[in-house]
Amino acid sequence: MFRKILIANRGEIALRIQRACREMGIPTVAVHSTADAEAMHVRLADESVCIGPPAAKESYLNVASILSAASITGADAIHPGYGFLSENGDFAEMVEAHGLAFIGPTAAHIRMMGDKIAAKTAMAGLGVPLVPGSDGEVATLEDAREVASRIGYPLLVKAAAGGGGRGMKVAEGPAGLEDAYTLARAEARAAFGNDAVYIERYLDRPRHIELQVLADMHGAVVHFGERDCSLQRRHQKVLEEAGSPALTPAARDRLGATVTAALRKLGYRNAGTLEFLYQDGHFAFIEMNTRLQVEHPVTEMVCGIDLVREQIRIAAGARLGYGQEDIRFNGHAIEARINAEDPETFMPTPGRVQAFHAPGGLGVRIDSAMYAGYRVPPYYDSLIGKLIVHAPTRLEAIARLRRALAEFAVVGIKTTIPLHQRILEDPAFIAGDYTIHWLERFVSGGTH
Amino acid sequence: MFRKILIANRGEIALRIQRACREMGIPTVAVHSTADAEAMHVRLADESVCIGPPAAKESYLNVASILSAASITGADAIHPGYGFLSENGDFAEMVEAHGLAFIGPTAAHIRMMGDKIAAKTAMAGLGVPLVPGSDGEVATLEDAREVASRIGYPLLVKAAAGGGGRGMKVAEGPAGLEDAYTLARAEARAAFGNDAVYIERYLDRPRHIELQVLADMHGAVVHFGERDCSLQRRHQKVLEEAGSPALTPAARDRLGATVTAALRKLGYRNAGTLEFLYQDGHFAFIEMNTRLQVEHPVTEMVCGIDLVREQIRIAAGARLGYGQEDIRFNGHAIEARINAEDPETFMPTPGRVQAFHAPGGLGVRIDSAMYAGYRVPPYYDSLIGKLIVHAPTRLEAIARLRRALAEFAVVGIKTTIPLHQRILEDPAFIAGDYTIHWLERFVSGGTH
Repeated sequence: MFRKILIANRGEIALRIQRACREMGIPTVAVHSTADAEAMHVRLADESVCIGPPAAKESYLNVASILSAASITGADAIHPGYGFLSENGDFAEMVEAHGLAFIGPTAAHIRMMGDKIAAKTAMAGLGVPLVPGSDGEVATLEDAREVASRIGYPLLVKAAAGGGGRGMKVAEGPAGLEDAYTLARAEARAAFGNDAVYIERYLDRPRHIELQVLADMHGAVVHFGERDCSLQRRHQKVLEEAGSPALTPAARDRLGATVTAALRKLGYRNAGTLEFLYQDGHFAFIEMNTRLQVEHPVTEMVCGIDLVREQIRIAAGARLGYGQEDIRFNGHAIEARINAEDPETFMPTPGRVQAFHAPGGLGVRIDSAMYAGYRVPPYYDSLIGKLIVHAPTRLEAIARLRRALAEFAVVGIKTTIPLHQRILEDPAFIAGDYTIHWLERFVSGGTH
Repeated sequence: MFRKILIANRGEIALRIQRACREMGIPTVAVHSTADAEAMHVRLADESVCIGPPAAKESYLNVASILSAASITGADAIHPGYGFLSENGDFAEMVEAHGLAFIGPTAAHIRMMGDKIAAKTAMAGLGVPLVPGSDGEVATLEDAREVASRIGYPLLVKAAAGGGGRGMKVAEGPAGLEDAYTLARAEARAAFGNDAVYIERYLDRPRHIELQVLADMHGAVVHFGERDCSLQRRHQKVLEEAGSPALTPAARDRLGATVTAALRKLGYRNAGTLEFLYQDGHFAFIEMNTRLQVEHPVTEMVCGIDLVREQIRIAAGARLGYGQEDIRFNGHAIEARINAEDPETFMPTPGRVQAFHAPGGLGVRIDSAMYAGYRVPPYYDSLIGKLIVHAPTRLEAIARLRRALAEFAVVGIKTTIPLHQRILEDPAFIAGDYTIHWLERFVSGGTH
């Protein structure tokens, strides 16, 4: 096992990793910018090193500073958390070149998944479903009809050279196909000087569903079920659930079998998450995150596993020691991200947390970097805490989250707590009836 | 379901019950003494009624005030929590006489279990094991030998008229029986004018093991496994575990079958806990608590059940809806009672909590009535919070509790947090090798 782990991150995730290490008996090194000298992850650290000024580029993204900190303190492994350097293949490579373990996948896999087109090609080659569509260009209306009859409606005719929505037409059904095909080609010719088009199934109301995976260095790959992260605003997840209200256990098992087989073939290692759009029973791979996710706790609650501990064990060469058949899904978990943001305008609200009191009781978990007196700096992500609940059923989890949010006291700065309270009262949310577009409409006050 | 529940208690347990009600959508009424006007259970209440001055007799034990508060607020059920009026048969009867539901067993069962001798007689009659011993008086040394060969050594020869340890002799083995028998009779004659003696197995190193039970009003009875509460000081539990490091699942199942059969015959209803001494594979019933226990959370963590919700459902006439085969035991849980006490002298430390920060993260639960600025009143029990951890294995639970205690900040008053930290470093505790005498020796610095 590692002698000492440097945690190359800040905020709640640095604390999360620190806690796992402490429970494993592994000393940790916290790093921090000058703006974070009083941060919780520093105050609770075994030892800490200041790695630079507030700007992330000069501290949390400063590879040289971080490697020096590891060298000075005698750390033999680095956990990158999420964000910052966590999906930087060059960093992973440099960490290993310096004789340290990188707690994550190989640099090659990080790079592969960092290139979204390469990732899709690789995954498709491994049998992971993409958005159904034509194999490349559709040269004639007759071909378009054939493709359409195979993939179904609604569908999108898209310019091969396209971008920004130009040369893109929706056909709602067979009657609209000719128009869509003809118009898309004409628009493509006008806009790009190239009338090649292809066809894809149009997902008008998809959910964002992702699958949590762990792989050891000995070929074992297991999944821990799905998370539904459809509630997003400007591509930022706001509230996540495990499992998805839209997925049956059978659908989860099928997806899990496909994904684990693909990652086994790929030789992937450590934690990863595959993100999909899901509609009408079909999954379409979007991207893979080669790191721990912000929302990993909902999976931990439902599966009774410590994902960070597993990441560390795997990086140290340990075998998973369990198989897919050992993974059980118990109850339902929801995570509410608490951001230092105005819940109406979503403007960041850095400043001093004058008073802080977290909710407690059965089925309530707090992963937070706040404390009374803590000053939220203006330099970083606005996520300052996560409230996670677990209960036997989804409705009980909703009731528990409501109850816990009502107890949550963060005084001095505005947070997204009131937004979550509004979401939890909405009949569509309670029914589990939402897509990736739902939250945008909800916050803009539109019908949904 | 009930319209409104009055919670006839204070502190963390009032809050615990309030949380369950809120999650069930049932409004609650908090009651409080004048000393508790700023208490957490009042601050978070839907509505609250002041029921008298600080002295418990004039407030939390004041039946007339509590019934008036229920009447004024329109409550149709009362949850008594633990302590105070929770094991008062007359109170349960008066609550029901006033047309309210008492969330607990019948007055008759409360009274039966309140009389410790009647409880033992009743339980023995229902097949629950007591300390093995003779059937009444042992008239001759030959009879004594016969009893001894049946129950084993060490054993106690006790004066039937005895008390205070007089007329009580230990025989460690067959060689010592004649002396013990003769001396006990002689001492009994001298002390009580009555040389009748009886024989009981001597439990020199028992554990305190208790079994959590729920029974509905339709004859269903299930148990939720055991808690090991051997760590006590002056008969006050300090740290509790589920399950017991000393019990096999088979032993738990056997005890559970015996106990649930007994309570089914008795017609018991709602929550209850049977307490046993356990040594050398034998259980000896001590008493039954006809209420929720302080340490109920460890059972909740391991079984994934909300015992307070179940109490309320049962009192409202609902069926359990599950059987013994549905109860699963997952991982290990430990509860550390946080008392406002000096961890060396155990003197109460009422006063103002200047700063408060609870630990968080995976597998950590806080049931606490503290907040920054809260003034712990000098009038009541010193228990001010409970830190409960849950993990896949006992050793991981110990590591997690250590980690969480290190994060726990209660500034302004002394608490028992340092005592727990000392216990968790002790090799005997870590090995699970302790009896009901262990903690007394540990705190007095003796060998153990």
